[in-house]
Amino acid sequence: MLIHLSSWPEIDARLKTTKTVVVPIGSNEQHGPTGLLGTDWLCPEIVAHAAERQDEQLVVAPTFNIGMAQHHLAFAGTISLRPSTFMAAITDWVSSLSRHGFERIYFLNGHGGNVATIEATFAEIYAEWSFVEEQPPFVLKLRNWWDLPGVHGFCNRMFPTGHGMHATPSEIAVTQAAYPHLVKTAAMEPRIAPVGPIRDALDYRARFPDGRIGSDPLLASPEKGQEIIDVAVPALLKDVADFTAEVLP
Amino acid sequence: MLIHLSSWPEIDARLKTTKTVVVPIGSNEQHGPTGLLGTDWLCPEIVAHAAERQDEQLVVAPTFNIGMAQHHLAFAGTISLRPSTFMAAITDWVSSLSRHGFERIYFLNGHGGNVATIEATFAEIYAEWSFVEEQPPFVLKLRNWWDLPGVHGFCNRMFPTGHGMHATPSEIAVTQAAYPHLVKTAAMEPRIAPVGPIRDALDYRARFPDGRIGSDPLLASPEKGQEIIDVAVPALLKDVADFTAEVLP
Amino acid sequence: MLIHLSSWPEIDARLKTTKTVVVPIGSNEQHGPTGLLGTDWLCPEIVAHAAERQDEQLVVAPTFNIGMAQHHLAFAGTISLRPSTFMAAITDWVSSLSRHGFERIYFLNGHGGNVATIEATFAEIYAEWSFVEEQPPFVLKLRNWWDLPGVHGFCNRMFPTGHGMHATPSEIAVTQAAYPHLVKTAAMEPRIAPVGPIRDALDYRARFPDGRIGSDPLLASPEKGQEIIDVAVPALLKDVADFTAEVLP
Amino acid sequence: MLIHLSSWPEIDARLKTTKTVVVPIGSNEQHGPTGLLGTDWLCPEIVAHAAERQDEQLVVAPTFNIGMAQHHLAFAGTISLRPSTFMAAITDWVSSLSRHGFERIYFLNGHGGNVATIEATFAEIYAEWSFVEEQPPFVLKLRNWWDLPGVHGFCNRMFPTGHGMHATPSEIAVTQAAYPHLVKTAAMEPRIAPVGPIRDALDYRARFPDGRIGSDPLLASPEKGQEIIDVAVPALLKDVADFTAEVLP
Amino acid sequence: MLIHLSSWPEIDARLKTTKTVVVPIGSNEQHGPTGLLGTDWLCPEIVAHAAERQDEQLVVAPTFNIGMAQHHLAFAGTISLRPSTFMAAITDWVSSLSRHGFERIYFLNGHGGNVATIEATFAEIYAEWSFVEEQPPFVLKLRNWWDLPGVHGFCNRMFPTGHGMHATPSEIAVTQAAYPHLVKTAAMEPRIAPVGPIRDALDYRARFPDGRIGSDPLLASPEKGQEIIDVAVPALLKDVADFTAEVLP
Amino acid sequence: MLIHLSSWPEIDARLKTTKTVVVPIGSNEQHGPTGLLGTDWLCPEIVAHAAERQDEQLVVAPTFNIGMAQHHLAFAGTISLRPSTFMAAITDWVSSLSRHGFERIYFLNGHGGNVATIEATFAEIYAEWSFVEEQPPFVLKLRNWWDLPGVHGFCNRMFPTGHGMHATPSEIAVTQAAYPHLVKTAAMEPRIAPVGPIRDALDYRARFPDGRIGSDPLLASPEKGQEIIDVAVPALLKDVADFTAEVLP
Repeated sequence: MLIHLSSWPEIDARLKTTKTVVVPIGSNEQHGPTGLLGTDWLCPEIVAHAAERQDEQLVVAPTFNIGMAQHHLAFAGTISLRPSTFMAAITDWVSSLSRHGFERIYFLNGHGGNVATIEATFAEIYAEWSFVEEQPPFVLKLRNWWDLPGVHGFCNRMFPTGHGMHATPSEIAVTQAAYPHLVKTAAMEPRIAPVGPIRDALDYRARFPDGRIGSDPLLASPEKGQEIIDVAVPALLKDVADFTAEVLP
Repeated sequence: MLIHLSSWPEIDARLKTTKTVVVPIGSNEQHGPTGLLGTDWLCPEIVAHAAERQDEQLVVAPTFNIGMAQHHLAFAGTISLRPSTFMAAITDWVSSLSRHGFERIYFLNGHGGNVATIEATFAEIYAEWSFVEEQPPFVLKLRNWWDLPGVHGFCNRMFPTGHGMHATPSEIAVTQAAYPHLVKTAAMEPRIAPVGPIRDALDYRARFPDGRIGSDPLLASPEKGQEIIDVAVPALLKDVADFTAEVLP
Repeated sequence: MLIHLSSWPEIDARLKTTKTVVVPIGSNEQHGPTGLLGTDWLCPEIVAHAAERQDEQLVVAPTFNIGMAQHHLAFAGTISLRPSTFMAAITDWVSSLSRHGFERIYFLNGHGGNVATIEATFAEIYAEWSFVEEQPPFVLKLRNWWDLPGVHGFCNRMFPTGHGMHATPSEIAVTQAAYPHLVKTAAMEPRIAPVGPIRDALDYRARFPDGRIGSDPLLASPEKGQEIIDVAVPALLKDVADFTAEVLP
Repeated sequence: MLIHLSSWPEIDARLKTTKTVVVPIGSNEQHGPTGLLGTDWLCPEIVAHAAERQDEQLVVAPTFNIGMAQHHLAFAGTISLRPSTFMAAITDWVSSLSRHGFERIYFLNGHGGNVATIEATFAEIYAEWSFVEEQPPFVLKLRNWWDLPGVHGFCNRMFPTGHGMHATPSEIAVTQAAYPHLVKTAAMEPRIAPVGPIRDALDYRARFPDGRIGSDPLLASPEKGQEIIDVAVPALLKDVADFTAEVLP
Repeated sequence: MLIHLSSWPEIDARLKTTKTVVVPIGSNEQHGPTGLLGTDWLCPEIVAHAAERQDEQLVVAPTFNIGMAQHHLAFAGTISLRPSTFMAAITDWVSSLSRHGFERIYFLNGHGGNVATIEATFAEIYAEWSFVEEQPPFVLKLRNWWDLPGVHGFCNRMFPTGHGMHATPSEIAVTQAAYPHLVKTAAMEPRIAPVGPIRDALDYRARFPDGRIGSDPLLASPEKGQEIIDVAVPALLKDVADFTAEVLP
Repeated sequence: MLIHLSSWPEIDARLKTTKTVVVPIGSNEQHGPTGLLGTDWLCPEIVAHAAERQDEQLVVAPTFNIGMAQHHLAFAGTISLRPSTFMAAITDWVSSLSRHGFERIYFLNGHGGNVATIEATFAEIYAEWSFVEEQPPFVLKLRNWWDLPGVHGFCNRMFPTGHGMHATPSEIAVTQAAYPHLVKTAAMEPRIAPVGPIRDALDYRARFPDGRIGSDPLLASPEKGQEIIDVAVPALLKDVADFTAEVLP
């Protein structure tokens, strides 16, 4: 059940039996010479929507499509929230979803650069309760889609070299599976991009001139993307089910 | 050209000839017994994407899908940002887009409840420059899709009674045109919803029990929605062209 | 009853019978070659104080004299709050007045540029309650003095041409009625000022070199101002009475 | 020259010869059984406006009439800003006045409870420059009106007993001189109010049931108030002149 | 009992009999040619830890070692919080300590420049309760170590000339008593530093080229420092005992 | 060179040859039945100060002793900053240190719960530069002391079972080496604490009743702590030297 394509009485009815909601969250940022700028929010959306098609009990929120991407701002098309803004926005999403009775809020994340800020946000939210000795009416969980059980290993076996850390062939492939008419190609030199630390935008562009980090996105194909999706979808359904079933102390 | 389905070199190249970007912006909130929760962000997205298909020079950002909907929070599925959060997020979008060289940033809005906060944000952004006697490198414009020249009159003629202010048949129709398999129906009593002031969420729900204000959404149909889109798309293209061509003092 | 000229026991006693308070709110900003910088806060103060003299049951707060005027900052004497500051301050006024038992807080506004931010503030305040399913102990209302029933039409009939949008003869006239010794004159070229969009301060000054928008303030006179006040005062008293009498759902 | 009763060209012209502006700043808060709620902003306004009548070269801003009065909130009519709001607002006033070329900004304060927050604000403003090794284009000064040279001693001699710290006969007298028709009286028990620490609003009301601290406001009279004003006005003019003439290192 | 050198069960046990905690708070900032940069946080720490050694019932929190020192930023080694940051941090300390049941929170301060911001913070904290007519579960107190009863007079008698306001021989001496191996010396010209107003960092450095204000730190010695400590410690123990014993209204 | 025990001219002189500063950063939070509440800020302080004794060219800032510990707030003595406060404070430390010319700022961290917020802060700081296409004048680095090259493996070999994640024998041992008179003991049941997710404070206390996660702190001894320090100190010196020597792109 996709919230944005449902009416409020439909969500209201579903809340009688389901207290869990999945929020696809990512970033809109450069993904190398061929990757879509939307890659990091499209991937969790693709996986979550595919899972919803398999199990329409799954409640999926709209996609949180802009995240923390300050280091990519030297590449056209990147849109970034400051971490403080990102924190405020996630907080308001949680407040809204909790207001309706969702008690388990599961963020399916598509951008490694979001992790620190999302975790800091969880702490900011929990702190309001911790300072006053009250129990929050919700539990929050963050899961990167590539960290769904089995996915990371599967991708590494599929791309034993050139997987890298940014504009990886696995994420590119997932978007190619969903948007096969948008497969792009380009010459890339070196074939496998360099690696290094991540700092501000100018530093990033100087280190990684075409945007990639450690990856060879040309290894991607729509078919491989579909294979990854096929591994990720059941893993997501199981992970959400486990989260829903978890007994709190 | 949809930013999120492009690569950064493609946006980079387009920026050589285009300095204008369209940002569909809306809200995820209840739209009565039959309307999609995503109506207010889907409508500007539908119109902007249709316009981009007619003129692929048009650069369209990802959709800003959560806005200011505090008054709808008593209806399941609504997600709202506080105005202060909304302001911070819009500011970061503007900073990001301006960083790449976009000089005219056009927000195509789908939610009346967003207007005050978006205008306040523009003032907040401009104030940074006004306090220090500097010229901002961008111009900001807000346009509600129903205020595109010709659209409002067209909708009023199409729905002479029962158009109302929330969950209007025109916006419902637009989403039905784009998602015809999701046309929903429900008994609504009274057929035309009441009107009144908008305050907090509990007050809203007490005044407008099924969420509608002044509207009869059952008047909507996919065909009518397509007619509206067909009026809105050229109006948008012309409005953006005028904005792009405007000579600054 | 003017709060600032009363003692606390007097306000305490009045609160036994009155739960409504009127807050004159405006801006300190340029008003063309002849208008007083205080025009936008003086006008609602003049009207509210005149109303209080007619009905001393009316509780009037001190005047909130600085608002959102970033676009006027290129003209000497203008003082502006950032919208975010303005929001915080209005919030604290509401918290304070609500603390004492005022349940209906009526802002009589004198500056069009304040409207968006005041409305965003109302939403920010209400959101705290909407997120947690609680009813706020107050109702907020914004009314521009020129939108008091009957006033706008009266002014338009009085000034069929040259009324414009900023430094209008009607607001200038109201201040002249209250401060007749301060009537100023100046050559204005063109007689009716240009119109156009409002953006940052430098853009504003380039478009509107003497500060006026669309107006001919030389049409003003103290006598006309008094006529306007005489229309506005009963309209305010009735509007406040209606607000006080409104039954909540 | 009162800014709010001037036009922008008048302020513009004055700025050619004057770079100093006086900002009366105070608070709207209970002042015991007989004192006006506006006492703390009326007093600096009364003194500053009287000074401006003697020397119309003096530029006086509108009165900043709401300050930090959280401890008085248990008494009806008090309006308080949180310190953080107060800081933001003062910052915006300074930014606005500095924008026009005012280089010496003199706050004439009427409320002891404002002092800490105003000083913290000055530090917050200066910090922006200190962090980046730049010189601010303005100098800020805070002066309580009762600390103008000669005033404090004069008041103490006038009221050797019962002056106290809040709702003092001297401040009450100053407002009586300006508003003689509003002289109020009440039985007060004890005649001289108790003293003690200042904390939150409920604590304050428990300690100081009628609002006074250490004072006997019945000692006030309009005549005494005028005497105080007559001492304060030349002291203010001299203090401002000294501030204007101060040579920076 | 030093919190940071205790285990949580030890603090838990102590809270059964003690509801008061002492927080040494200061600043890390230049202290002239010879003073330690840590002087202002070391002094209250030295005094509080010495007191704790005499009465191990005294609960002492970790030292809050960075305060408001923007005016010293032109001297290497100074670290400053903006007042707004300082306020947020103190608020969180108070929330944390109150969470555990500490009801009397006593800040022993070592930096005059902290006073305004700490007092503004207390007001910010109290305001949350004052706005809603609730009693906070704690009482806050600020005491500068040199204002402990008897200390100021003792220091003035010890240093009848050259005590000054910054890098005073008394504070230097206290650190010398605790760190006798770190006694530094330097030529200072003039022997007694100048005095003047405190503004931004560049202004400060221009007025006070070696950092001192009005002081002759060469008068300090470890022995004198020990004498001061010996006066301050019993004064602190008594002051804390009085604070603990204070009956609230 | 410890900044807080130096004078400003000493730091000034050192800055001629050194542009790197080490900031020990941690948290004050419960560490199980026997661990010191200060463990997480004491450990990086102990290691950094030991390193400074070996190489007095190393510039070490005062210890940032309060971090993000909301999940420990149900245990007495814990003091936590909200992440947003923590971010503001780190930002001000960086601004201050950068002001003096430190170009490489190395945070030696002692608390895993700080990592997300510190990384988010780095992004917040960098974003200011990334939005405007400027290069920051500093590079920031975060290193947990247990992640210094070689340390983690050493600790794991020393404690093959019962190391765990919180109140680990390695961190307890390091504090025992520095404070051998404070070695505490207690019965712990079970000997190795449970593991699980970290959420709010009440959830944490319910899952981990004595505060430990997965650890057996009784394995610690001062001797083992000294061995760990002896491994960490050269690792820190080398890591800082590498950071200093790193060539920027």
